[in-house]
Amino acid sequence: MQRESVSGSARKIDHLGIAVFDLAQAERLYTEVLGLPVVHREMVEAEKVKTSFIPLGEVEIELLEPTDPESPVGRFLTTRGEGLHHVAIEVEDLPKALERARRGGFRVVDEVPRRGARGTMVAFLHPKSTNGVLIELVQRCPEEVQR
Amino acid sequence: MQRESVSGSARKIDHLGIAVFDLAQAERLYTEVLGLPVVHREMVEAEKVKTSFIPLGEVEIELLEPTDPESPVGRFLTTRGEGLHHVAIEVEDLPKALERARRGGFRVVDEVPRRGARGTMVAFLHPKSTNGVLIELVQRCPEEVQR
Repeated sequence: MQRESVSGSARKIDHLGIAVFDLAQAERLYTEVLGLPVVHREMVEAEKVKTSFIPLGEVEIELLEPTDPESPVGRFLTTRGEGLHHVAIEVEDLPKALERARRGGFRVVDEVPRRGARGTMVAFLHPKSTNGVLIELVQRCPEEVQR
Repeated sequence: MQRESVSGSARKIDHLGIAVFDLAQAERLYTEVLGLPVVHREMVEAEKVKTSFIPLGEVEIELLEPTDPESPVGRFLTTRGEGLHHVAIEVEDLPKALERARRGGFRVVDEVPRRGARGTMVAFLHPKSTNGVLIELVQRCPEEVQR
Protein backbone atom coordinates (compact mmCIF):
# COMPACT_ATOMS: atom_id res chain seq x y z
CA MET A 1 0.00 0.00 0.00
CA GLN A 2 1.38 3.42 -0.99
CA ARG A 3 2.01 5.53 2.12
CA GLU A 4 4.28 8.35 1.01
CA SER A 5 2.98 11.29 -1.03
CA VAL A 6 4.87 12.35 -4.19
CA SER A 7 6.28 15.79 -5.02
CA GLY A 8 3.84 18.53 -5.96
CA SER A 9 1.03 16.68 -4.24
CA ALA A 10 -2.34 17.99 -3.06
CA ARG A 11 -2.36 19.98 0.20
CA LYS A 12 -6.02 20.13 1.17
CA ILE A 13 -9.56 20.61 -0.02
CA ASP A 14 -9.87 24.32 -0.76
CA HIS A 15 -13.63 24.48 -1.07
CA LEU A 16 -16.81 22.57 -1.91
CA GLY A 17 -19.11 24.27 -4.41
CA ILE A 18 -22.77 23.39 -3.82
CA ALA A 19 -25.43 24.38 -6.36
CA VAL A 20 -28.65 25.63 -4.74
CA PHE A 21 -31.88 27.32 -5.81
CA ASP A 22 -31.94 29.85 -2.98
CA LEU A 23 -28.89 31.05 -1.03
CA ALA A 24 -30.82 32.30 2.01
CA GLN A 25 -32.65 29.00 2.39
CA ALA A 26 -29.46 26.96 1.86
CA GLU A 27 -27.49 28.99 4.42
CA ARG A 28 -29.85 27.82 7.18
CA LEU A 29 -28.22 24.37 7.48
CA TYR A 30 -24.83 25.96 8.10
CA THR A 31 -25.90 28.83 10.33
CA GLU A 32 -28.85 27.40 12.31
CA VAL A 33 -27.89 23.72 12.58
CA LEU A 34 -24.09 23.79 12.35
CA GLY A 35 -23.64 27.16 14.06
CA LEU A 36 -21.30 28.55 11.40
CA PRO A 37 -20.97 32.14 10.19
CA VAL A 38 -21.47 33.29 6.61
CA VAL A 39 -18.34 35.43 6.21
CA HIS A 40 -18.88 36.76 2.71
CA ARG A 41 -21.50 37.06 -0.02
CA GLU A 42 -20.62 37.98 -3.57
CA MET A 43 -22.15 38.28 -7.02
CA VAL A 44 -19.76 36.72 -9.55
CA GLU A 45 -20.85 38.26 -12.85
CA ALA A 46 -18.49 36.16 -15.02
CA GLU A 47 -20.04 32.91 -13.75
CA LYS A 48 -23.55 34.33 -13.35
CA VAL A 49 -23.85 33.16 -9.75
CA LYS A 50 -24.49 34.65 -6.35
CA THR A 51 -22.28 33.01 -3.71
CA SER A 52 -22.17 32.62 0.06
CA PHE A 53 -18.87 31.64 1.72
CA ILE A 54 -18.91 29.60 4.92
CA PRO A 55 -15.57 28.48 6.42
CA LEU A 56 -15.70 25.02 8.00
CA GLY A 57 -12.28 24.10 9.41
CA GLU A 58 -9.70 24.47 6.64
CA VAL A 59 -12.35 24.03 3.92
CA GLU A 60 -14.76 26.68 2.66
CA ILE A 61 -18.33 25.86 1.71
CA GLU A 62 -19.37 27.91 -1.33
CA LEU A 63 -23.09 28.00 -1.95
CA LEU A 64 -23.84 28.84 -5.59
CA GLU A 65 -27.18 30.27 -6.75
CA PRO A 66 -27.35 30.96 -10.50
CA THR A 67 -28.64 34.32 -11.72
CA ASP A 68 -29.23 32.88 -15.22
CA PRO A 69 -30.66 29.42 -16.00
CA GLU A 70 -28.31 29.21 -19.02
CA SER A 71 -25.16 29.63 -16.89
CA PRO A 72 -23.10 26.50 -16.06
CA VAL A 73 -24.54 26.27 -12.53
CA GLY A 74 -28.04 27.07 -13.88
CA ARG A 75 -27.84 24.20 -16.36
CA PHE A 76 -26.47 21.90 -13.63
CA LEU A 77 -29.53 22.69 -11.47
CA THR A 78 -31.92 22.08 -14.36
CA THR A 79 -30.45 18.68 -15.26
CA ARG A 80 -29.22 17.34 -11.89
CA GLY A 81 -31.03 19.36 -9.24
CA GLU A 82 -29.40 20.75 -6.13
CA GLY A 83 -26.21 19.14 -4.87
CA LEU A 84 -22.44 19.16 -4.95
CA HIS A 85 -21.24 21.04 -8.04
CA HIS A 86 -17.45 20.74 -7.63
CA VAL A 87 -14.65 19.89 -5.22
CA ALA A 88 -11.71 22.29 -5.32
CA ILE A 89 -8.37 20.80 -4.27
CA GLU A 90 -5.29 22.89 -3.56
CA VAL A 91 -2.15 21.51 -5.20
CA GLU A 92 1.47 22.64 -4.81
CA ASP A 93 2.27 22.57 -8.51
CA LEU A 94 -0.72 22.93 -10.84
CA PRO A 95 1.14 22.50 -14.19
CA LYS A 96 2.68 19.29 -12.86
CA ALA A 97 -0.66 17.93 -11.58
CA LEU A 98 -2.31 18.81 -14.90
CA GLU A 99 0.46 17.06 -16.83
CA ARG A 100 0.06 13.96 -14.65
CA ALA A 101 -3.72 14.05 -15.29
CA ARG A 102 -3.19 14.28 -19.05
CA ARG A 103 -0.60 11.50 -19.06
CA GLY A 104 -2.91 9.34 -16.95
CA GLY A 105 -5.71 9.66 -19.52
CA PHE A 106 -7.94 11.93 -17.43
CA ARG A 107 -10.22 14.30 -19.33
CA VAL A 108 -8.96 17.84 -18.77
CA VAL A 109 -11.40 20.78 -19.15
CA ASP A 110 -8.64 23.43 -19.11
CA GLU A 111 -5.59 22.49 -21.19
CA VAL A 112 -3.55 25.14 -19.39
CA PRO A 113 -4.09 26.76 -15.96
CA ARG A 114 -6.21 29.91 -16.01
CA ARG A 115 -6.81 32.70 -13.50
CA GLY A 116 -9.29 31.85 -10.74
CA ALA A 117 -10.71 33.86 -7.84
CA ARG A 118 -8.51 35.67 -5.33
CA GLY A 119 -5.21 35.45 -7.20
CA THR A 120 -5.27 31.70 -7.77
CA MET A 121 -4.56 29.65 -10.87
CA VAL A 122 -7.11 26.91 -11.57
CA ALA A 123 -7.86 24.06 -13.98
CA PHE A 124 -10.83 21.70 -14.04
CA LEU A 125 -10.92 17.94 -14.62
CA HIS A 126 -14.08 16.60 -16.27
CA PRO A 127 -16.38 14.57 -14.00
CA LYS A 128 -16.70 11.86 -16.68
CA SER A 129 -13.15 10.78 -15.84
CA THR A 130 -13.18 11.57 -12.11
CA ASN A 131 -16.04 9.37 -10.89
CA GLY A 132 -18.81 11.92 -11.31
CA VAL A 133 -17.10 14.61 -9.26
CA LEU A 134 -16.07 17.80 -11.08
CA ILE A 135 -12.57 18.53 -9.74
CA GLU A 136 -11.10 22.04 -9.65
CA LEU A 137 -7.33 22.03 -9.14
CA VAL A 138 -6.22 25.25 -7.43
CA GLN A 139 -2.77 26.69 -6.91
CA ARG A 140 -2.32 29.77 -4.74
CA CYS A 141 0.06 32.37 -6.17
CA PRO A 142 3.31 33.00 -4.23
CA GLU A 143 2.10 36.19 -2.49
CA GLU A 144 -0.88 34.26 -1.17
CA VAL A 145 1.27 31.35 0.04
CA GLN A 146 3.57 33.70 1.98
CA ARG A 147 0.75 35.30 3.95
CA MET B 1 -23.93 39.34 8.39
CA GLN B 2 -23.43 36.69 11.10
CA ARG B 3 -19.72 36.36 11.96
CA GLU B 4 -19.61 34.55 15.29
CA SER B 5 -20.21 30.82 15.55
CA VAL B 6 -22.65 29.52 18.18
CA SER B 7 -21.99 26.95 20.90
CA GLY B 8 -21.73 23.31 19.87
CA SER B 9 -20.92 24.32 16.33
CA ALA B 10 -19.30 22.29 13.56
CA ARG B 11 -15.51 21.83 13.74
CA LYS B 12 -14.54 20.58 10.31
CA ILE B 13 -15.43 18.28 7.45
CA ASP B 14 -14.58 14.79 8.68
CA HIS B 15 -14.80 12.99 5.36
CA LEU B 16 -16.34 12.97 1.89
CA GLY B 17 -17.92 9.67 0.84
CA ILE B 18 -17.72 9.13 -2.93
CA ALA B 19 -19.64 6.27 -4.58
CA VAL B 20 -17.62 4.52 -7.32
CA PHE B 21 -17.92 1.39 -9.44
CA ASP B 22 -14.28 0.32 -9.02
CA LEU B 23 -12.02 1.30 -6.11
CA ALA B 24 -8.74 0.62 -7.90
CA GLN B 25 -9.74 2.76 -10.87
CA ALA B 26 -11.06 5.56 -8.64
CA GLU B 27 -7.89 5.63 -6.49
CA ARG B 28 -5.83 6.67 -9.56
CA LEU B 29 -6.99 10.32 -9.41
CA TYR B 30 -5.80 10.62 -5.82
CA THR B 31 -2.57 8.62 -6.09
CA GLU B 32 -1.34 9.35 -9.64
CA VAL B 33 -2.60 12.90 -10.20
CA LEU B 34 -2.80 14.32 -6.66
CA GLY B 35 0.15 12.34 -5.27
CA LEU B 36 -1.71 11.15 -2.18
CA PRO B 37 -1.36 7.84 -0.33
CA VAL B 38 -4.16 5.34 0.24
CA VAL B 39 -3.66 4.67 3.96
CA HIS B 40 -6.31 2.06 4.56
CA ARG B 41 -8.67 -0.27 2.72
CA GLU B 42 -11.53 -2.02 4.46
CA MET B 43 -14.55 -4.17 3.75
CA VAL B 44 -17.52 -2.84 5.77
CA GLU B 45 -19.90 -5.81 5.90
CA ALA B 46 -22.74 -3.91 7.61
CA GLU B 47 -22.91 -1.35 4.77
CA LYS B 48 -21.94 -3.83 2.03
CA VAL B 49 -19.14 -1.65 0.71
CA LYS B 50 -15.42 -1.87 0.14
CA THR B 51 -13.70 1.38 1.10
CA SER B 52 -10.40 3.16 0.43
CA PHE B 53 -9.31 5.95 2.80
CA ILE B 54 -7.20 8.82 1.46
CA PRO B 55 -6.32 11.69 3.85
CA LEU B 56 -6.30 15.11 2.17
CA GLY B 57 -5.39 17.79 4.71
CA GLU B 58 -7.77 17.50 7.66
CA VAL B 59 -10.42 15.77 5.52
CA GLU B 60 -10.49 12.11 4.53
CA ILE B 61 -11.69 10.97 1.12
CA GLU B 62 -13.61 7.70 1.46
CA LEU B 63 -14.14 5.87 -1.81
CA LEU B 64 -17.11 3.50 -1.57
CA GLU B 65 -17.58 0.50 -3.88
CA PRO B 66 -20.72 -1.53 -3.16
CA THR B 67 -20.45 -5.30 -2.87
CA ASP B 68 -24.23 -5.65 -3.38
CA PRO B 69 -26.36 -3.65 -5.86
CA GLU B 70 -29.20 -3.65 -3.29
CA SER B 71 -27.11 -1.91 -0.61
CA PRO B 72 -27.62 1.85 -0.04
CA VAL B 73 -24.49 2.76 -2.03
CA GLY B 74 -25.38 0.17 -4.69
CA ARG B 75 -28.82 1.73 -5.17
CA PHE B 76 -27.28 5.20 -5.26
CA LEU B 77 -24.97 4.10 -8.10
CA THR B 78 -27.86 2.55 -10.04
CA THR B 79 -30.07 5.63 -9.82
CA ARG B 80 -27.54 8.52 -9.76
CA GLY B 81 -24.29 7.07 -11.09
CA GLU B 82 -20.90 7.76 -9.58
CA GLY B 83 -20.41 10.87 -7.49
CA LEU B 84 -20.48 12.37 -4.02
CA HIS B 85 -22.54 10.15 -1.71
CA HIS B 86 -22.30 12.09 1.55
CA VAL B 87 -20.46 14.85 3.40
CA ALA B 88 -19.57 14.02 7.01
CA ILE B 89 -19.24 17.01 9.32
CA GLU B 90 -17.74 16.80 12.80
CA VAL B 91 -19.79 18.63 15.40
CA GLU B 92 -18.99 19.32 19.06
CA ASP B 93 -22.39 18.32 20.36
CA LEU B 94 -24.38 15.93 18.19
CA PRO B 95 -27.60 15.80 20.27
CA LYS B 96 -27.70 19.60 20.26
CA ALA B 97 -27.10 19.84 16.48
CA LEU B 98 -29.76 17.18 15.86
CA GLU B 99 -32.23 19.06 18.05
CA ARG B 100 -31.53 22.29 16.15
CA ALA B 101 -32.06 20.43 12.85
CA ARG B 102 -35.40 19.05 14.05
CA ARG B 103 -36.56 22.42 15.37
CA GLY B 104 -35.51 24.05 12.08
CA GLY B 105 -37.72 21.68 10.09
CA PHE B 106 -34.88 19.64 8.57
CA ARG B 107 -35.64 16.04 7.68
CA VAL B 108 -33.68 13.82 10.06
CA VAL B 109 -32.81 10.23 9.02
CA ASP B 110 -31.70 9.17 12.52
CA GLU B 111 -33.99 10.43 15.28
CA VAL B 112 -31.26 9.73 17.84
CA PRO B 113 -27.48 9.45 17.39
CA ARG B 114 -26.23 5.93 16.65
CA ARG B 115 -22.78 4.32 16.73
CA GLY B 116 -20.61 5.04 13.69
CA ALA B 117 -17.15 3.86 12.67
CA ARG B 118 -14.10 4.20 14.93
CA GLY B 119 -15.92 5.02 18.16
CA THR B 120 -17.97 7.92 16.80
CA MET B 121 -21.64 8.75 17.20
CA VAL B 122 -23.40 9.72 13.97
CA ALA B 123 -26.76 10.89 12.62
CA PHE B 124 -27.78 11.60 9.03
CA LEU B 125 -29.83 14.48 7.63
CA HIS B 126 -31.89 13.69 4.52
CA PRO B 127 -30.64 15.28 1.26
CA LYS B 128 -34.21 16.41 0.42
CA SER B 129 -33.90 19.06 3.12
CA THR B 130 -30.15 19.78 2.76
CA ASN B 131 -29.95 20.91 -0.87
CA GLY B 132 -29.29 17.49 -2.38
CA VAL B 133 -26.31 16.73 -0.14
CA LEU B 134 -26.65 13.81 2.29
CA ILE B 135 -25.14 15.13 5.54
CA GLU B 136 -23.63 12.85 8.18
CA LEU B 137 -23.18 14.59 11.53
CA VAL B 138 -20.30 13.02 13.46
CA GLN B 139 -19.24 13.42 17.07
CA ARG B 140 -16.01 11.86 18.28
CA CYS B 141 -16.27 10.13 21.64
CA PRO B 142 -14.28 11.66 24.54
CA GLU B 143 -11.36 9.15 24.37
CA GLU B 144 -10.93 10.01 20.70
CA VAL B 145 -11.02 13.77 21.34
CA GLN B 146 -8.31 13.48 24.02
CA ARG B 147 -5.83 11.70 21.72
